[in-house]
Amino acid sequence: MAVYTHVSAEEMGALLARFDVGTLLSAKGIAEGVENSNYLVEATGGRFILTLYEKRVDEADLPFFLALLDHLAEAGLPVPRALPARDGTQVQRVAGRPACLIEFLSGVSVSHPTPAQAHAAGAALGAMHTALRHFQLERPNALGPVDWRALAARCGADLDIIQPGLAARVAAELDWLAVHWPVGLPRAVIHADLFPDNVLMLDDRVTGVIDFYFACTEVRAWDLAVTHSAWAFSADGADYDPAIGEALVAGYESRFPLSAAEKAAFPALCRGAALRFLLTRAWDWLNTPADALVTRKDPLAFLRRLEFYAR
Amino acid sequence: MAVYTHVSAEEMGALLARFDVGTLLSAKGIAEGVENSNYLVEATGGRFILTLYEKRVDEADLPFFLALLDHLAEAGLPVPRALPARDGTQVQRVAGRPACLIEFLSGVSVSHPTPAQAHAAGAALGAMHTALRHFQLERPNALGPVDWRALAARCGADLDIIQPGLAARVAAELDWLAVHWPVGLPRAVIHADLFPDNVLMLDDRVTGVIDFYFACTEVRAWDLAVTHSAWAFSADGADYDPAIGEALVAGYESRFPLSAAEKAAFPALCRGAALRFLLTRAWDWLNTPADALVTRKDPLAFLRRLEFYAR
Repeated sequence: MAVYTHVSAEEMGALLARFDVGTLLSAKGIAEGVENSNYLVEATGGRFILTLYEKRVDEADLPFFLALLDHLAEAGLPVPRALPARDGTQVQRVAGRPACLIEFLSGVSVSHPTPAQAHAAGAALGAMHTALRHFQLERPNALGPVDWRALAARCGADLDIIQPGLAARVAAELDWLAVHWPVGLPRAVIHADLFPDNVLMLDDRVTGVIDFYFACTEVRAWDLAVTHSAWAFSADGADYDPAIGEALVAGYESRFPLSAAEKAAFPALCRGAALRFLLTRAWDWLNTPADALVTRKDPLAFLRRLEFYAR
Repeated sequence: MAVYTHVSAEEMGALLARFDVGTLLSAKGIAEGVENSNYLVEATGGRFILTLYEKRVDEADLPFFLALLDHLAEAGLPVPRALPARDGTQVQRVAGRPACLIEFLSGVSVSHPTPAQAHAAGAALGAMHTALRHFQLERPNALGPVDWRALAARCGADLDIIQPGLAARVAAELDWLAVHWPVGLPRAVIHADLFPDNVLMLDDRVTGVIDFYFACTEVRAWDLAVTHSAWAFSADGADYDPAIGEALVAGYESRFPLSAAEKAAFPALCRGAALRFLLTRAWDWLNTPADALVTRKDPLAFLRRLEFYAR
């Protein structure tokens, strides 16, 4: 939630000159995303987001992300496409970093979605999965089921600093998932991080799906499980809202029906989703100073979700 | 350079409903200012900055700042005025903090001003001083000449951590200024922090003067000295650019001629300006962890300016 790299007005003006977007009117660093530096740029030809990719996004992955966004945009999905410069390239170099000038999408991220909003988000996810059935590129999931045990091992006994007994609880869940994780479900490119933060809405309409930097090839229905765990609970994970959860799945199925096997596996997929965010938040928690300006997200909010799914 | 307080889309929508600005289309937290949380808000009725005042701005000072901005705007200066809500109030309460919805101004802050841009900035400062000749409110300068000795004492011997000998150099400068600080020069409300960051420009035109949160009643010509120290040097303070310094003063005098007494005092005023920023940067440097996300500004960049002015 910070701008890591400063781009001067002079550099910004020189960058815009490579595109057909007119001249610079305004540029504000925005506190969005934890991965990159972002500027909201206004030019005489429109409004854009300038993203500078910092170390957490591998430059070698950019062609995958850009092709994915182009594919989804061509299918009519409201995703932020990177503009081509006059020379046809989408990736520029700004202040020493790879950078893209990206379409600006209106809309706001809701903090307390209504069932109608959850239905719309589910439908957007289903529409994305429909559009991606024939998308050819692949990208491995760096935070998939095979990585959770290693991530837990890296946290180690320190998990008990977060809450006594957490290390044992995580170990037991890893064992349960090793036995119950579904095999043979369809795999596809998924968003993998469709939290309410990453969906822009106006009223009950989805106007943008953003932040595809975790997109990867994975069990497709797991994407719905991640979204379910992200949307259907209070922020602290203590309260499940069945109206939200059901609307989300109904919205999804209005665009992309789940198979019987996916439905049967859904509770285990949700446990895996909760464990994945529990582990990454735990790692960040243990490795972020309490007084850092970056807000630490509570790992226990996903332990509570896990216990809900396990009941 | 961070958003300290999160405002949900729901709160943002409820806030806009108090104003005649239409409905919410977009809101992005922006990394601007070190004092407050700021959002760039787009509504159907226009674009605005939502500022939430954090602890470093005293709520009791807001009526002064708002009256100052209204006064300057009425005189035709491009300053960000706070909109009145339908009930006439300019200060709202958002997420527990005092907050204002503020006009959005186009333009960008230049990093390497040209003489023409420095002339325009000087002229804008002169025009502000003209407009403020009859402004009645007053606000003491919390970082004025009488406070520098106390600030140096608070830094104490730790100044030598920044550079060996710095504590003695500061003490000598305080003694010099005690003898040479001008008396009897006209006092008025000044901006007191007109760095290039706080001037928005399009080409050579000033489109906005922002960040009035240091505005105070002080020796008026000191405002030009602060601006001179901020604009006419390379960022590290090592190189003075006479073309910039002269253009700035010429621009100022095109709108507000200096008296003979002010001209005679100008070198001492510049030494005081350099010392003020040396001391506040030194304090922040000594009290900010090196690994904090807030960028520490180099105090020695203003020691170098001080030595230039002292020559």
